[in-house]
Amino acid sequence: MSDIKKVVLAYSGGLDTSVIVKWLQETYNCEVVTFTADIGQGEEVEPARAKAKAMGIKEIYIDDLREEFARDFVFPMFRANAIYEGEYLLGTSIARPLIAKRLIEIANETGADAISHGATGKGNDQVRFELGAYALKPGIQVIAPWREWDLTSRETLMDYCAKHEIPVDYANAKKKSPYSMDANLLHISYEGGNLEDPWWEAEDPDMWRWTVAPEQAPDQPTYLEITYEKGDIVAINGEAMSPATVMEYLNKVGGENGIGRLDIVENRYVGMKSRGCYETPAGTIMMKAHRGIESITLDREAAHLKDELMPRYAKLVYNGYWWSPERKMLQLAIDESQKVVNGDVRVKLYKGSVSVVGRRSPDSLFDEKIATFEDDAGAYDQKDAEGFIKLNALRLRIAADKGRDIL
Amino acid sequence: MSDIKKVVLAYSGGLDTSVIVKWLQETYNCEVVTFTADIGQGEEVEPARAKAKAMGIKEIYIDDLREEFARDFVFPMFRANAIYEGEYLLGTSIARPLIAKRLIEIANETGADAISHGATGKGNDQVRFELGAYALKPGIQVIAPWREWDLTSRETLMDYCAKHEIPVDYANAKKKSPYSMDANLLHISYEGGNLEDPWWEAEDPDMWRWTVAPEQAPDQPTYLEITYEKGDIVAINGEAMSPATVMEYLNKVGGENGIGRLDIVENRYVGMKSRGCYETPAGTIMMKAHRGIESITLDREAAHLKDELMPRYAKLVYNGYWWSPERKMLQLAIDESQKVVNGDVRVKLYKGSVSVVGRRSPDSLFDEKIATFEDDAGAYDQKDAEGFIKLNALRLRIAADKGRDIL
Amino acid sequence: MSDIKKVVLAYSGGLDTSVIVKWLQETYNCEVVTFTADIGQGEEVEPARAKAKAMGIKEIYIDDLREEFARDFVFPMFRANAIYEGEYLLGTSIARPLIAKRLIEIANETGADAISHGATGKGNDQVRFELGAYALKPGIQVIAPWREWDLTSRETLMDYCAKHEIPVDYANAKKKSPYSMDANLLHISYEGGNLEDPWWEAEDPDMWRWTVAPEQAPDQPTYLEITYEKGDIVAINGEAMSPATVMEYLNKVGGENGIGRLDIVENRYVGMKSRGCYETPAGTIMMKAHRGIESITLDREAAHLKDELMPRYAKLVYNGYWWSPERKMLQLAIDESQKVVNGDVRVKLYKGSVSVVGRRSPDSLFDEKIATFEDDAGAYDQKDAEGFIKLNALRLRIAADKGRDIL
Amino acid sequence: MSDIKKVVLAYSGGLDTSVIVKWLQETYNCEVVTFTADIGQGEEVEPARAKAKAMGIKEIYIDDLREEFARDFVFPMFRANAIYEGEYLLGTSIARPLIAKRLIEIANETGADAISHGATGKGNDQVRFELGAYALKPGIQVIAPWREWDLTSRETLMDYCAKHEIPVDYANAKKKSPYSMDANLLHISYEGGNLEDPWWEAEDPDMWRWTVAPEQAPDQPTYLEITYEKGDIVAINGEAMSPATVMEYLNKVGGENGIGRLDIVENRYVGMKSRGCYETPAGTIMMKAHRGIESITLDREAAHLKDELMPRYAKLVYNGYWWSPERKMLQLAIDESQKVVNGDVRVKLYKGSVSVVGRRSPDSLFDEKIATFEDDAGAYDQKDAEGFIKLNALRLRIAADKGRDIL
Repeated sequence: MSDIKKVVLAYSGGLDTSVIVKWLQETYNCEVVTFTADIGQGEEVEPARAKAKAMGIKEIYIDDLREEFARDFVFPMFRANAIYEGEYLLGTSIARPLIAKRLIEIANETGADAISHGATGKGNDQVRFELGAYALKPGIQVIAPWREWDLTSRETLMDYCAKHEIPVDYANAKKKSPYSMDANLLHISYEGGNLEDPWWEAEDPDMWRWTVAPEQAPDQPTYLEITYEKGDIVAINGEAMSPATVMEYLNKVGGENGIGRLDIVENRYVGMKSRGCYETPAGTIMMKAHRGIESITLDREAAHLKDELMPRYAKLVYNGYWWSPERKMLQLAIDESQKVVNGDVRVKLYKGSVSVVGRRSPDSLFDEKIATFEDDAGAYDQKDAEGFIKLNALRLRIAADKGRDIL
Repeated sequence: MSDIKKVVLAYSGGLDTSVIVKWLQETYNCEVVTFTADIGQGEEVEPARAKAKAMGIKEIYIDDLREEFARDFVFPMFRANAIYEGEYLLGTSIARPLIAKRLIEIANETGADAISHGATGKGNDQVRFELGAYALKPGIQVIAPWREWDLTSRETLMDYCAKHEIPVDYANAKKKSPYSMDANLLHISYEGGNLEDPWWEAEDPDMWRWTVAPEQAPDQPTYLEITYEKGDIVAINGEAMSPATVMEYLNKVGGENGIGRLDIVENRYVGMKSRGCYETPAGTIMMKAHRGIESITLDREAAHLKDELMPRYAKLVYNGYWWSPERKMLQLAIDESQKVVNGDVRVKLYKGSVSVVGRRSPDSLFDEKIATFEDDAGAYDQKDAEGFIKLNALRLRIAADKGRDIL
Repeated sequence: MSDIKKVVLAYSGGLDTSVIVKWLQETYNCEVVTFTADIGQGEEVEPARAKAKAMGIKEIYIDDLREEFARDFVFPMFRANAIYEGEYLLGTSIARPLIAKRLIEIANETGADAISHGATGKGNDQVRFELGAYALKPGIQVIAPWREWDLTSRETLMDYCAKHEIPVDYANAKKKSPYSMDANLLHISYEGGNLEDPWWEAEDPDMWRWTVAPEQAPDQPTYLEITYEKGDIVAINGEAMSPATVMEYLNKVGGENGIGRLDIVENRYVGMKSRGCYETPAGTIMMKAHRGIESITLDREAAHLKDELMPRYAKLVYNGYWWSPERKMLQLAIDESQKVVNGDVRVKLYKGSVSVVGRRSPDSLFDEKIATFEDDAGAYDQKDAEGFIKLNALRLRIAADKGRDIL
Repeated sequence: MSDIKKVVLAYSGGLDTSVIVKWLQETYNCEVVTFTADIGQGEEVEPARAKAKAMGIKEIYIDDLREEFARDFVFPMFRANAIYEGEYLLGTSIARPLIAKRLIEIANETGADAISHGATGKGNDQVRFELGAYALKPGIQVIAPWREWDLTSRETLMDYCAKHEIPVDYANAKKKSPYSMDANLLHISYEGGNLEDPWWEAEDPDMWRWTVAPEQAPDQPTYLEITYEKGDIVAINGEAMSPATVMEYLNKVGGENGIGRLDIVENRYVGMKSRGCYETPAGTIMMKAHRGIESITLDREAAHLKDELMPRYAKLVYNGYWWSPERKMLQLAIDESQKVVNGDVRVKLYKGSVSVVGRRSPDSLFDEKIATFEDDAGAYDQKDAEGFIKLNALRLRIAADKGRDIL
């Protein structure tokens, strides 16, 4: 064991990370600092304080990071329209760099020489935590108990709890869930259990927690008017809202309308395929609405450049490279494009689907007098199209003329 | 006027192209060959024969191109998951290269020296028709009446009809529509009229023709089991179907479930923004299902490469470069990836939304024994993750160590 | 003819643009403002004043734009390592947006309603001038005489001169050149004449003007030490220099060593292939040196992102989209990467070739203690490589295990 | 130690891999199969047989893989114009997948359960060997002695030799070199020693082995006429040659003219920067010449697509993903483009530089009648350019008209 004196642990207050507290104390004989954050997971964070104290922790950090999370992580990512593998809105991925940053800040404040987390050795989260930590503090040590210990089954873990007098709340709903779950303002995710069979329909009504089934959603659609400034939502239905409030509001309204359920098989950075179910009510609405406001405000080539860069950006976020120079480069390009992304989008929510039904903007590039099918009074000279086509066709004509066959 | 002897016209049998027949005869004093194709637009094509004959046309081509359209154009495009500007499934775009190809084939058969079409000088279709034509027969001449004549208002057009005794069927439902429409197996589109105000909700119940409103769709979901071979659908619910039959079937079932309505503002190749509404029931289901079967069969990096190439591919199709060497290059790369895209996807249709609820394949790369959250019996060594992370972090650590600030 | 009152002409003082002055006055019956810029073409610009005056021009602009050109156009472009089609350093392309900008500024100052230029209808320059002009002043009118008039041969042009008493300096060396030439601080180009046969070697000793033939260059190499700040050269051999001075100096030294000759066939934006010869002494050195300083200061992924964006950036510049939102987006990303591109590069010039022979930087990421082949005292743990490889291989192994054949 | 019965070793016959033979026998108590390949490194491979026999090896493979290497690896890569980080021609990278493939073939033939190689834990080669091996035989075991043993200094290695009676040829020139070297038909590389200081000029005359210094090259240029079929060289100066012969010939002529020296700092896949010097005479000529023949035969957009894909392709090869589905996808796209890359290129070699001075092809798209500066007799209508520019400018004009500032 390397010589570690103090370690900052990302501590949820749940059973697994409580075991880690004890295991760190015992295995590394070091001081443990716990850090618990409210990033909108929908559970109280204060109870973590008492639990940590009970295990002898002296330095306990409990932070409300919801606004920072929404403003500095989720919102910039949505400016990019980031979707991983055509489907996934990166709900887990985007929370990790914030946690990594805060772990390192606390390590700096408390003089800790290591950080620790409860992510397994099979998943993406270990990568995201650790890449972030190393990028921000290159000399930090990382302890990943799931890669080190032998408590690899529920049984051995329970034995460890019994032996070390770690209280287990057997009535706790989450713990009874057969699924591995993760939640924050952007989403809640489910993995494991029956989901390990990709042919099995995720129809377990006890699994989904944030949304009603589309079948249970209201029979009447809900309309929202969403106001954007520089690519970010600043008001809904005319009411100004902070970033975190926007997300909480959209999660609520979206969830009531059955919006945001997703069931996919994705490719992890560590190399295997994994099946996950997600509820992302606010994110699903935000993605559609943002495309809507961009559709009238973005220049075509700026939009296309964004679309071509997007898969790369999404992959960076998914793989854990938020704190990297290449993400910063892409972000600057994207943010530049968003200066003009101002205006209102009207969306319709109905039984699981979101539709954009209207968009308007002081920065609109939609030019009615040119677009019209009616007489445009000379705004556009149709004869220009001939030259446009002729020169765009020139290379193709020369090739065909030289005998090339394109069929 | 250049010296044109015979021109092949893409003739719908409708009023506009009937006027063009007359106008070509009169203006160019040339012979006109009409070509009318069934590409699944849902209207009879045979009536075009009588109309053409009545105008003195001697060479009349009426073709059923539905299978060719689905098999050689729509299906290859869906292997690419092509979406233009994040939303548009390219329903109009993909039909044009087939029409261009057939126009040229007929020009070759009939010895025509020109082709003609009814697309306006403001839209994308003129570009798609003409790029295709020039690529396939570089010496062909193109007559685009809408760029040449002065019949630019409905009124002047009607006067022309009266003067030249072109029969106008005032009772024809489509002609009464305030919207400019286009249909084929993949979609029906609407432009113009009230849609020219992007804030106006496209709630006109008379506009939408292929789908019921989600609100009117059945209260019970519909499930489909879709079978893929090499990235193409070959059977539904166990019944083998030809490509065109697949599309007709999915259009029907999708339409009944309110699937495939889309309302967007898009960027035309000729430079302006345009608002369009689309109904693409089959395409919407196919897109989701294809992503589903790819999710378990495609290698991660093959999938990511496809995702990064996709916007470019979609743009090529949108802009009219189907018959180009660069589209062929991309298609070969995409098709190579699809050899393993075999298996079944189960989808759920419900009031406007499509969800993938299951996927299975003899070519699945989903490896349960590695993916499992339970004990994997050594299939994956969690300790490998440490080295993986350490080396991926190395460049970031060195930079941080040298004092670079990434925050 | 549209009703134009005043036109700003990009006026070189040479014969062609002198004819244009007369032709504009005569054809459009409008006032002409001449604009002549020194962008390092190596010819006096003041003589243009007298010539313009002689033709009755009242508003004459003669500007020294060398520093602006080098600082705001050439240098930003070199931060991107921009090369078009693997070879061309964009010497002509990059000068056009500056000329377009200045034409529009002068149009605004003088109240002109049009601009004019001497570029032909076959080339890229018309596109670059006009895209720039339209982007900066959308209502501007553009007169491109070469696309309008019938003075399409040297003979008709001479007749026009004779008829309108435009003095022709038959002794002028440049005019006698069989090549069409263009020059600025970045390069001098040659097109036409014998070059229209791509198999013909450009061995005409009278053609090349800025460089000696490598065979005539000194037998001893020349070494330079080039200092960079934020990706730009700020000093050579320890002597601080302004951007234009850097280029003039490197053109001189490079030219003496036979550096920067290029002979290529390129693809024009208007659709045809064109053969051109170029002399780019400073640019050739700058490209190599910039790669050299980036090699020790840029993060790997930042560098690779730049490399992947580069062809697109180069194409934008080549095609004339300098003044576009997409170029700005890319520039911001590129410039962000250059903050750390500081330090010195040592280059060797010898008979036509440039080699980087040394590079050092306070921002170097080259870490001797990790890179060394000798014992690194634990700076790098070779065992990490095993996990790195294992997880990177995982997807490939799973695929092979499932029977996929990659050979 | 895992239970390994037989291991196939990539055996050079040199000291290091001789030590590995012994170490494998001793450490794993397993049978060793040696595999020695001639891939053009310029050293006899037969002596490896006697050395292997002397160490008790029973299964000895010695293969001449030069033609396979040139034809199936180097040539396909050059069709892509692959350059890593703007400079490196991937000389080492491209040899590894062939070695990996042959190791696995031999493992299959001999029933070996493991392979082994002499690459260190710091470099790229271990990754390339092992990714290839795992992709081709997922259950293979890999032994990388340099990551396992403690013979990490020259001294401990010599002690091991002494102890195990491994003969050390102290007079061997290569071993005395202070540089780590690697050679094959495509290049010879140097790392380590003084090169670990990136500011130090690689002027050591004893280091460079394949090329004369440009200063020592002939005073007269050498011209070559190189003939391409489908993107590959098939003849030089009219003489048909096999792929390996092409490379041997060009290495000879190139080396005599001082062609192909390169001195760079590159970014390794494992995360650190590394300084390397390379001699790549044939490759340097091939790269230039291939660009030359493509310049007249490739369609513009096919060429640009290749250029945009190239950095990604080069990275794949550099990182060791030759045997991957994504490389195959890209290769198919690239190879499709090469069907028309036929014809002759004339190059001039002179004291370290290669210039293309002529190109001609039956598949040339260079159209003299359109390209000409003289009267083109209507081949190109200059007036088309106006419409082309107007529509390309439309989006920029609309934006400017709406008040957007692009400066």
